[in-house]
Parts: sequence; C-alpha cells; structure tokens
Amino acid sequence: MITVLRLGHRPARDKRVTTHVALTARVFGADAVLVSTRDPVLERTVRNVVRRFGGSFRILTGVPWRRTLQDWNGPKVHLTMYGLPIEDVLTRIPRENLLIVIGAEKVPREVYDLVDFNVAVGNQPHSEVAALAVFLDRLHGGRSIRAEAAAQVRIRPNPRGKSVNGSGR
Amino acid sequence: MITVLRLGHRPARDKRVTTHVALTARVFGADAVLVSTRDPVLERTVRNVVRRFGGSFRILTGVPWRRTLQDWNGPKVHLTMYGLPIEDVLTRIPRENLLIVIGAEKVPREVYDLVDFNVAVGNQPHSEVAALAVFLDRLHGGRSIRAEAAAQVRIRPNPRGKSVNGSGR
Repeated sequence: MITVLRLGHRPARDKRVTTHVALTARVFGADAVLVSTRDPVLERTVRNVVRRFGGSFRILTGVPWRRTLQDWNGPKVHLTMYGLPIEDVLTRIPRENLLIVIGAEKVPREVYDLVDFNVAVGNQPHSEVAALAVFLDRLHGGRSIRAEAAAQVRIRPNPRGKSVNGSGR
Repeated sequence: MITVLRLGHRPARDKRVTTHVALTARVFGADAVLVSTRDPVLERTVRNVVRRFGGSFRILTGVPWRRTLQDWNGPKVHLTMYGLPIEDVLTRIPRENLLIVIGAEKVPREVYDLVDFNVAVGNQPHSEVAALAVFLDRLHGGRSIRAEAAAQVRIRPNPRGKSVNGSGR
C-alpha cells in the first residue's frame, strides 16, 4: 500500500499540477492520494479517470496534513530537492504502508522533521510531478506502468495513431 | 544533444505545467526546450533558474512546430499514451540529436506521422511532465540527475532541512 500526501494545494492555481500528481501516483502504482485542501472538482476529475481506466485508486481532499503525518503508521518519505540523493537512500526505505509527501511552492519546516526520509530526485529545482514519477518508477524497478487494471477503456499500443477499446465516456 | 519540443502551450492555462516541463527537461539531461507559443514570462522564469543553478540549458518560445518537425535532422520521439510501450522501443531509439515531442491537451493527428517513434510511458492518462521525466531517466540509465552544473547556487543534500551554498538571487 502506497499513499501520496499532497501539501499546499491551492485549487485555482494548482488545479492542473495536482491533477497531474494524482494521475501520476495512480499510473506508477500508488493506491491513494490525500490532498490537504478540500477540492471537489479535483476529486471528480480523478474519479472519472479511475472509473474509465480501472483500478481502485482513491482520492480524498481536505485532509489535515499535520495529523496525518503525526498519526501515520508506516514509513514517511518527503520528496524535496534539499533531501538526500535517491540513489543513496532508496534501498533503505521500507515499503510497507509507505506515505510519500509532495509539497507545492513552500513546505512548512516541520514537515522535514515529521518524516523519516527527506529524499531528493536531483538536488535542483524541477517538478513534484517528475520527482514522484521517477521515485515510484525506481521504487518498483520500472514495473508499475506495466500493470494494467481491468478497465472500461483500454488503449492498445500503436506505432502511428490512437487505438482505443471500449467506451466509458 | 537532446531537445524537447512542447506543443499546444497556452500561456495562461499551462504556465505552471510548461515550467515543470522545461525544468524537468533541464534536470534530466536535455539541452533545450522549444515551445510552440510565444511566452516571454516563461522564458524569463526558466532563464532565471539556469542563471542561478548553472548549465547552458536553453529555452525558445514562439517556435513553429510543424516546420521544426519537418526539418529536424535526427530522430523524433513523441511521448503519448497511445504509443508503443517504452520498454519495447527505448533501445531502438538513436540518441544523436534527439527531439522529444510533448503535447498539451490535444495533439494534432499529423504529429503522429511526422515523428519516428510514438512512445508510451504507460498506456493510461497521467502527465507529460511525468512521462518526460521517466523517459529521460531511463534513457540515461538514471545518471542524468547526478550530473550537476557549476552553479551560483548549490544545494547540499541534508537529511533534515535545507542547506544552500551561494546566493544567486
């Protein structure tokens, strides 16, 4: 079980990036995303994708992040460019009920202390979506994007166009 | 030399996601990003990061995408969930002067024909930022985020907080 906790989501400004965070979490093998700010539109968007493309990925918004971190029963990883290189720590991270914390612009200082590992996917600024994708891809040894849920809509690989089975719209 | 071509950028709506695309390209070892729509604000944002964090990454906006694709002298890869699985095609892609095409919402049909490879990082919807990051991470065998440019600002890995050398603001 892998859960992603998204901090500092501002519905107007971060709408698209947080949607990317949630869908990336789903495709790369996480089971749920918790978002610190309540956002019913985001919930609907993500649930529509789950309904059409399958699986049991869950989204919950309006989740109190501090209590979630304090009460979490399992390892907690914060992805930040200030952390220790992923190459050095990945093998030391337990996978049982893992919580992965992803910030938006500014992350409160105490987050760094409330987690077990501050991990950097590169020590330079880029994107929490990219950091999450590469962290999960490496955590699963590249296997997560291969696993496909039973879905209403299924895309068949195609060298030159779009092949879609099913409807589900 | 690796170049990323970002299609369909709408400055108001895609500001943050395209910034993520550009910074992800930079950190994961691309040399430049070309953006189909002119956007001086985006250029300034990305150039500020390059100035502070080093390297010679370039951004150019207002680039005619069709002509760029038609005239490109090197292999062209389009990242799309409709494409062939990355696992199956990665080793067949030449790296000399590689162009990686990344769409926003809707990609014109002819893009699928103008490229040499349509590649899927997972055949389900997620994020062009995630797709680009994982594609480049795998292309470089995980080594790209290790290489650091000589920079005004350098972040020292830290298990519990932020360590920054230099200023560069």
